[in-house]
Amino acid sequence: MINKNNYAVLLLSCPDKIGLVSTITNYISENSGNIVDLDEHVSSAEKTFFIRIVWDLTNFLIPIDQLNNEFEKILKKLNANFEIKFLSKKSRTAIFVSKYDHCLNEILWRHSTNDYPFEIPLIVSNHEDLRLIAEMHKIPFYFFPIDKENKMEQELKEIELLNEQNIDTIVLARYMQILSPNFVKKFPNQIINIHHSFLPAFVGSNPYKQAYQRGVKIIGATSHYVTEVLDDGPIIEQDIIRISHKEALNDLVRKGKDLERLVLARALINHIEHKILVSGRKTIIFD
Amino acid sequence: MINKNNYAVLLLSCPDKIGLVSTITNYISENSGNIVDLDEHVSSAEKTFFIRIVWDLTNFLIPIDQLNNEFEKILKKLNANFEIKFLSKKSRTAIFVSKYDHCLNEILWRHSTNDYPFEIPLIVSNHEDLRLIAEMHKIPFYFFPIDKENKMEQELKEIELLNEQNIDTIVLARYMQILSPNFVKKFPNQIINIHHSFLPAFVGSNPYKQAYQRGVKIIGATSHYVTEVLDDGPIIEQDIIRISHKEALNDLVRKGKDLERLVLARALINHIEHKILVSGRKTIIFD
Amino acid sequence: MINKNNYAVLLLSCPDKIGLVSTITNYISENSGNIVDLDEHVSSAEKTFFIRIVWDLTNFLIPIDQLNNEFEKILKKLNANFEIKFLSKKSRTAIFVSKYDHCLNEILWRHSTNDYPFEIPLIVSNHEDLRLIAEMHKIPFYFFPIDKENKMEQELKEIELLNEQNIDTIVLARYMQILSPNFVKKFPNQIINIHHSFLPAFVGSNPYKQAYQRGVKIIGATSHYVTEVLDDGPIIEQDIIRISHKEALNDLVRKGKDLERLVLARALINHIEHKILVSGRKTIIFD
Amino acid sequence: MINKNNYAVLLLSCPDKIGLVSTITNYISENSGNIVDLDEHVSSAEKTFFIRIVWDLTNFLIPIDQLNNEFEKILKKLNANFEIKFLSKKSRTAIFVSKYDHCLNEILWRHSTNDYPFEIPLIVSNHEDLRLIAEMHKIPFYFFPIDKENKMEQELKEIELLNEQNIDTIVLARYMQILSPNFVKKFPNQIINIHHSFLPAFVGSNPYKQAYQRGVKIIGATSHYVTEVLDDGPIIEQDIIRISHKEALNDLVRKGKDLERLVLARALINHIEHKILVSGRKTIIFD
Repeated sequence: MINKNNYAVLLLSCPDKIGLVSTITNYISENSGNIVDLDEHVSSAEKTFFIRIVWDLTNFLIPIDQLNNEFEKILKKLNANFEIKFLSKKSRTAIFVSKYDHCLNEILWRHSTNDYPFEIPLIVSNHEDLRLIAEMHKIPFYFFPIDKENKMEQELKEIELLNEQNIDTIVLARYMQILSPNFVKKFPNQIINIHHSFLPAFVGSNPYKQAYQRGVKIIGATSHYVTEVLDDGPIIEQDIIRISHKEALNDLVRKGKDLERLVLARALINHIEHKILVSGRKTIIFD
Repeated sequence: MINKNNYAVLLLSCPDKIGLVSTITNYISENSGNIVDLDEHVSSAEKTFFIRIVWDLTNFLIPIDQLNNEFEKILKKLNANFEIKFLSKKSRTAIFVSKYDHCLNEILWRHSTNDYPFEIPLIVSNHEDLRLIAEMHKIPFYFFPIDKENKMEQELKEIELLNEQNIDTIVLARYMQILSPNFVKKFPNQIINIHHSFLPAFVGSNPYKQAYQRGVKIIGATSHYVTEVLDDGPIIEQDIIRISHKEALNDLVRKGKDLERLVLARALINHIEHKILVSGRKTIIFD
Repeated sequence: MINKNNYAVLLLSCPDKIGLVSTITNYISENSGNIVDLDEHVSSAEKTFFIRIVWDLTNFLIPIDQLNNEFEKILKKLNANFEIKFLSKKSRTAIFVSKYDHCLNEILWRHSTNDYPFEIPLIVSNHEDLRLIAEMHKIPFYFFPIDKENKMEQELKEIELLNEQNIDTIVLARYMQILSPNFVKKFPNQIINIHHSFLPAFVGSNPYKQAYQRGVKIIGATSHYVTEVLDDGPIIEQDIIRISHKEALNDLVRKGKDLERLVLARALINHIEHKILVSGRKTIIFD
Repeated sequence: MINKNNYAVLLLSCPDKIGLVSTITNYISENSGNIVDLDEHVSSAEKTFFIRIVWDLTNFLIPIDQLNNEFEKILKKLNANFEIKFLSKKSRTAIFVSKYDHCLNEILWRHSTNDYPFEIPLIVSNHEDLRLIAEMHKIPFYFFPIDKENKMEQELKEIELLNEQNIDTIVLARYMQILSPNFVKKFPNQIINIHHSFLPAFVGSNPYKQAYQRGVKIIGATSHYVTEVLDDGPIIEQDIIRISHKEALNDLVRKGKDLERLVLARALINHIEHKILVSGRKTIIFD
């Protein structure tokens, strides 16, 4: 839920060793921070420690603008990767779309409920089809038509726009263009895609057709962070739905829409509520 | 359920055309058969008609031993493939195992409940490990050790045994040997395998390890008819279970056992209750 | 899917006896109707026969306006209840709402996709809150405020409006008023409600609060036809979602919205695609 | 999994206040305990703090036999309820059965896998039916026939037996007798029952019949701790399975068996792996 409280979130991973939890929680307590939520995980295979701590900043002795520096001092000896987020601050999320409207509508509805901590400063598309929906919701719609020749140039403009608008999260809501490695590198673990299959089955194009031809009894959808390799990034969320011989290919497409929009929405929510740590090709989700 | 009634089942597929249902149901009614269950499906993509009809033989005018011949006369003009089965007759099912006992135990328990129409005349294995379980259930256990040299010869002995025992269904309950094409051809759509992944993801060996390394959020199991291509036969049943970052590889293996045994059992039940039609690489399941 | 073909649907139930399928399918075939889909069920407990047949009217010898009369002649000897529907004709669906928008938005989006055979001639509400959404979708919005004094009178006006507009289906999309028996009787098996629990658990008000206090591990939603007894009509669709101790009451409410809108949408789709037969307090769904 | 390591588990709840996590983790770290797993939850509605900590005892400075006393000193100022368990110590689980074998077989199979930390010193029954299964598994079988007259007396003998055998967990594996309050009080949060419905729907006897008559689309099973009020104790695990109009009452019973045994097994596993805290009528499950 959108949290009106003055809470900070620490997301941290580091090599495992003795005393990590007490070192970190001690530091927060000594500075008068009340921990309201804590999740910890040790991957015994990789000997890595992961933690998410939420604490109340009301009486916290370290000023917000010095938080990163002060934690840096403590955490550098742990050889830790960490981020500090604030639950009162909404994510600035850009939505990329092409022609399908189901994922876009789902996210716009979630946004309208005020149940989730994000705002949508802009919608980007390589087609004009969904401009009307954007306008109905009074959200600026940017049209960047893309072909082989202009792709790099258009992406640079998109990146510029996203930076100007302080976008921290990009949702590919059935965006039918592959982003270039250059684009992807600019937003590590910030671009969320929905693939309409149960990855790693049916990578690439027309997964419903592939599923139909294989005669599977279950279809799936997968939401993942985008990396430079197609449909290969860390998986955030997956779900499935049963199908039967009665369903023709267009029924799979119709049913699949319900899966895609829910799976993408759930992935987005975990991301903007700062519940995800990425470790190599995997995600740790403290939900 | 095991049906004490005197019911026949017709499983039929043929090119679709007008009047098929009435032609067939008419024939049964005219001969005083009371239809108690009927499922029909037309695949509009392949223009193929599928039907399953269950009728009461009590007052049926055609003697059982002439059923096939008489239906043949009617159905040949439809260019139909068909089978007639009797619900009062139990399937004679052979179970092939290696070292894992979870699927074997599941099927033995199902058998013991008398809830399902099958008997288990024998268990075949390439290892001795599970002999004790077979003996506890008083089921003959046949040991056929297999190596590269003796494989063809041993399989011939197995085929001979299966034929002698009038086996109509073979369950590969985590049998860790690939059957040769020669063996498979002898039992078309009669050999049911369980693969411990959500096919077509993670074909081949060590699917849990593959799943663990990919960081999927859901693992699956797939039961399918065995064809000459590995893990490629018509899928009968699939199911999934959620996993999280907390689960190590051996947890996936442990959790997966529950999936494997249930998915295999459900596939077997549909098979022995004569609810499955095979069409190319797909199954039509009238459950 | 919306079916552009010229198909008729027969939904029929009657006491079970020999030869029903062939009598009915014969009649259709003799009149040059090609059956494209058929589902049949015999309830052995109640000795009742249920069937749904879809056939192509293209070359059908009986004119559409005489279909009911001609079938009546054939079917009266069977002591059958039956309806004939046309897949090319869209359902005229009225949506009743109060203040919650999630179910309304879901149905409006489904409508916009053109994937389902219904139109929405009007939205009725006892509050003004959702008028704007209706207007954005250019659907007439009728405001009928209701209190103890005016309830009967307002319902009469609503009934008049629904009749004028030839409404055949009424969806209570989280409509927070109990319809009077008089209203309900006018639309038997035509009013679809969504209750935000797994019925029959947590009947009545505040089901999420009841669920939270009971400490259940799963919450549900139930869509059913409305009868004169509250939350007691024939169930069309149910689904569930897992919850954990981490979820506070408002999290249940938030998660439950996803369930409610999907369960209601699926029930509506089965209804408008003429896949439901009602038998006493149960539904037969040929999906 | 059965953990060969020398790990301790602390399960603790207390009124929430600032610094709890650091106080506790500090104490463990200062005594050279390496925390390998930690889960924490604050119920904001009840202002209660819950924590589960697993740490390595290898270099722990406090001897095992003084653990409780030493923690008592630290934790009494927190007004905490706590337990300390050892993962290397197997639970001593007694199984109570009557005539149904599916839950018993499930638990015996789990036991045989060595995947779970429990042993089964004895099986208790009010019928002789399942003695053979106990004998096949070489587990002592105690027959305590129960009628109105002898119930109290027999229960006292059972309690004596359970105490003699140091039983810490009792599984009612479809045990068809209601335990008296006197019995229940002796084993608080140690008796696990399986009820064959989705509680609180269909409390009491014949839940499948109740479900069948209500026409639900989903059936469920619920495993819970036994309290003095029938089917009312804290819920540990629930799951469901879809049914359709095709299923007769005995099909529900048959399908339900699969649910019951899995739900009961999962509840038992969480209990014996010390992952459950009970808070009033609810469970906190750190899985």
